[in-house]
Formats: sequence, C-alpha cells, structure tokens
Amino acid sequence: MTANLKILEEHACFGGRVARYEHASESCHGPMRFSIYLPPQTVTGRVPVVYFLAGLTCTEETFMIKAGAQRYAAEWGLALVAPDTSPRRTGIPDETRDWDLGSGASFYVDATEEPWSRHYRMHQYVAEELPALVAASFPVDGNCQALCGHSMGGHGALTIGLRHGHRYRSLSAFAPVCAPSRTPWGQKAFGVYLGSDEARWRDYDTVALLKARESQALAPMLVDQGGGDPYLERELKTQWLEGLGGGALTLRWHEGYDHSYFFIASFIGDHMAFHARHLGVT
Amino acid sequence: MTANLKILEEHACFGGRVARYEHASESCHGPMRFSIYLPPQTVTGRVPVVYFLAGLTCTEETFMIKAGAQRYAAEWGLALVAPDTSPRRTGIPDETRDWDLGSGASFYVDATEEPWSRHYRMHQYVAEELPALVAASFPVDGNCQALCGHSMGGHGALTIGLRHGHRYRSLSAFAPVCAPSRTPWGQKAFGVYLGSDEARWRDYDTVALLKARESQALAPMLVDQGGGDPYLERELKTQWLEGLGGGALTLRWHEGYDHSYFFIASFIGDHMAFHARHLGVT
Repeated sequence: MTANLKILEEHACFGGRVARYEHASESCHGPMRFSIYLPPQTVTGRVPVVYFLAGLTCTEETFMIKAGAQRYAAEWGLALVAPDTSPRRTGIPDETRDWDLGSGASFYVDATEEPWSRHYRMHQYVAEELPALVAASFPVDGNCQALCGHSMGGHGALTIGLRHGHRYRSLSAFAPVCAPSRTPWGQKAFGVYLGSDEARWRDYDTVALLKARESQALAPMLVDQGGGDPYLERELKTQWLEGLGGGALTLRWHEGYDHSYFFIASFIGDHMAFHARHLGVT
Repeated sequence: MTANLKILEEHACFGGRVARYEHASESCHGPMRFSIYLPPQTVTGRVPVVYFLAGLTCTEETFMIKAGAQRYAAEWGLALVAPDTSPRRTGIPDETRDWDLGSGASFYVDATEEPWSRHYRMHQYVAEELPALVAASFPVDGNCQALCGHSMGGHGALTIGLRHGHRYRSLSAFAPVCAPSRTPWGQKAFGVYLGSDEARWRDYDTVALLKARESQALAPMLVDQGGGDPYLERELKTQWLEGLGGGALTLRWHEGYDHSYFFIASFIGDHMAFHARHLGVT
C-alpha cells in the first residue's frame, strides 16, 4: 500500500471488501477521495478494473452505496473504483454556492481559468493520476481498464475514454450529458472552468469528439438512457448520439426509467457483463 | 388505490416500480411513510410480499436504496415493503434528541407510557395496519407474507413474527438485537416506552419469546450475523440464539462482515431465496 493513502473506512462485501481512501493529489493540489471494491478474486492475483464517474452532487460514496454493482463485480472478478466528483475545500470563493458548479460539479475537465485552474484538474486526475495510484497500491491490472459513468460522469467517461482510447478496453454511460458545449449545465461550467473560447470546449463534448473521430477505430461503447428522464431534452441530448460512433456505440432506450440510481441499479449488471467481456474475463 | 395514500415519489426499477407513500395511520395517530417495490409479475396478478424493518436512524428509504433487494424481488416475483422506523413530528418533547430513542428508534413496540403511548405503536402498525393497507391498495397477496429486518428491525421482525406466527410464512434477520430486555439500547428504550415492569419487556425480546415457545411449531427463521460486527457483544447478543428455535432457526456466522448495508447487500439474495421458497414461488 502506498504511504500516501489514508484509509477512511472498510467493509467486507460479497466476499471481497469495499474501502474508501483519501490521498494527496498532485493533479488537484490537495486531498482527493475515492472508493474501491476489491472482489474475492484478488486473493489469487491482479484483476481488471472498472472506473465509475458519478454525477452532479454525488461523492465517492454514492456509487458503492446505491448502484448494487459489487455483486456483479464479485461474479466477474472485477475491481471497481469510484473517485469523488470534484476537489473539495480548496479555498476557492463560492466553491459550494451552486450545486452545478464547483464542489460536486467538476465536469471532469482540466480547468484553465482562475481561480479554478490550480485544483479543478479532474480530467488529468481520472485519466492518469488515479489509475497509476490504484495500479501501484492494489491488486489491479492497470493494463486492463474500463470506464463507466452517470450523467455528468457519463460525460466524463465518454470524453476521457474517447481522448485516451488506448487506456480503456470499453466505455459505458448511463444518461450521459452528451453535448455539454451546447446545453445549459455544460455551458455554465465550461464558461467558468475553460473560458469563453468555445473551440476549447469541444475537447470535452462527446458528440463533438465522436464526429471528429468518424474514421477512427473506437473502443466499444454502451449507453443506456431512460425514456422518462426529466433531464433528457434540456441537458442530456442522448438522442444526438444516434448514428454516431461508426458501429462501436450501442445506444439503448428504456421506456419509463428516470435519472435515478434505481435506473442505474436496474442495468448495471448489463454494463458489468459488457465490460467483463471486453476486459477478457468471460 | 386507497384515497388515504399520498405518493411521494416513484421510479421504474428492474422492470417494476419502487414508490414511497405517506398515509394517515390510525395506530400511530399521525402520518406514516413506507416504500414499496412492485415487481414486474404484478402485471398479471397478486404476488407474495416481504416486509423489511430497518434499524436505528434509518427511514423508509434506506432499504430500497442500499440493500439491492429489488433485483432478487424481480427475479422471484416478490413485493417488498419497508416502513419508516418510527412515527415522526409527533410533537413529543425531545423526540429527536437521542439517536437511539424516539424518531428513528421505535424498537417496534406498542408504547404504554406517556408521552409515547399515543403515537409509538409500531408493533400494531407493522403487524396489522400496514399489511391491511398494502393488501387493499396494491396487487399483493396479504395471505402470503414474510418478514425480514436489520438490527433494531431484526428484533422487530423476529418478535412480531414470533407473536403473530399465523401471519408470516417465514422470518429472517440481519444482525438482530436479540435480547433487548438485557442489553443497553433495549433497556433504555423499553424503560421509556414500556415502563419499569420488566416482565412486560419479555413480549419484545426474541430470546425470551423463543424460550417461551420451546414446544411450539415456529415459522422457519434465517438469521445472518457478521463476525466483525462492532455491536455484537454489547447490543446484539446473537450468540444467545444458538440452540433456540427447535430446528426452525438457522443461524449463520459470516467472518469479517460488519453491521453495515454492505453486509446486508451481500446476503439479501439468500434471504430473498429463503422467503421465496417458503412463500411458494419456487
């Protein structure tokens, strides 16, 4: 275990253990927290890992408590890692004023604007620092990674995965924010974190990234969207994914399902099976 | 749907729906809340039902969010009902002062002492009023019921189930408070709710009830206990169940597991399968 890691809590779970850690992040210049689930198969060796990025207002605890993914991870022999959704307590003024900006609302970008640019570097943190730390500290195979997320975290999973395709065997999302450069939550956050040059926003926009990569080989992607999601029309625009991804993207619609973790729990088993297949454990 | 029921929220979940309701309770002389999961099988008819009683500080939301039981309920075709752990906002002075007394801490008794006796009638509410309301309002078979619970709610499930054996096909508990008349949480609560005559406490004490029913036929019971549970020695005394129940009681020990919902989630599938078998759906 890396000396840098401070354990906050630990629980036996489905024959393995779920734990929560804090560490000093170089990317974010301050403490960051994450949860990890290590399945029983880690007793005999390293296992593939699925990272999960949560949505607005969530923390590193939410996914492990609400999604019910550990059961499937224990069946397939997959580790799960869920980082917090932003740095916290950075001292930035008004960091906690808005629920859709600052604490709990990083949008998984590397901020370029003051006063955010020193701490809000979640793209680098998720894509590079955290996987390196996890692979160095736990019985996890850093060459066998997948990425999943929900809402703002679905946006994070798809954009990070598309920009670092060599790092991830497969990507998936529940109700992702698909085009944040063109929808209100994203425009508010990108304007503050990235500044007014909208050309730079496209690096963090799934629809724009998919269009720019039309001729490239992409990691397999699974996206689930509830037809009863109240954020679909204004913020998510999941329908804009239709026809994109050149066959690598599977988009499924689920009538009546909303934006909640009851939706995620209902289909997380399919996502775990999807990632297990591409991570080579089936 | 009974006019008395006010819906608070509703979500699609594993092909069925999970919902939360408030209603005016006659037993508790005030509003009470519960959650219900109706599996997809309710489209074609009435289904058996498993009631779940949660522990100290929990609400009617906790079990549906944290236990991951809906997946199994959908597989077996079982409804789930989780009431709140006490009346709330009754106006009783200091009702919310202690985490182990009053709000969130009913101990599922019918209080006899002032100022609690008018509202804190959870035994009657859980055993009689709520099942009648549920059977009248939802596609649930009121003659095909099981009862499960955790900690204080494990105590509730076993004591209510033992005293109303004809109402339940099977009983189960996670880390139950087994002998509250002889352990600190229970003694504090019983002294306040039931008064100082300890003979009356035995009606709400699983160990005492099992000993008093040694020669009777009992409903099948499954109890799971974590070996790493920090409340085991002082408050739960699950080891005192060893040898009781005349063969009807199965007690399982799980090394390393604690008192959390990560423990419940790990074994709730076994409990659902146990109840499904005794409810006749397998």
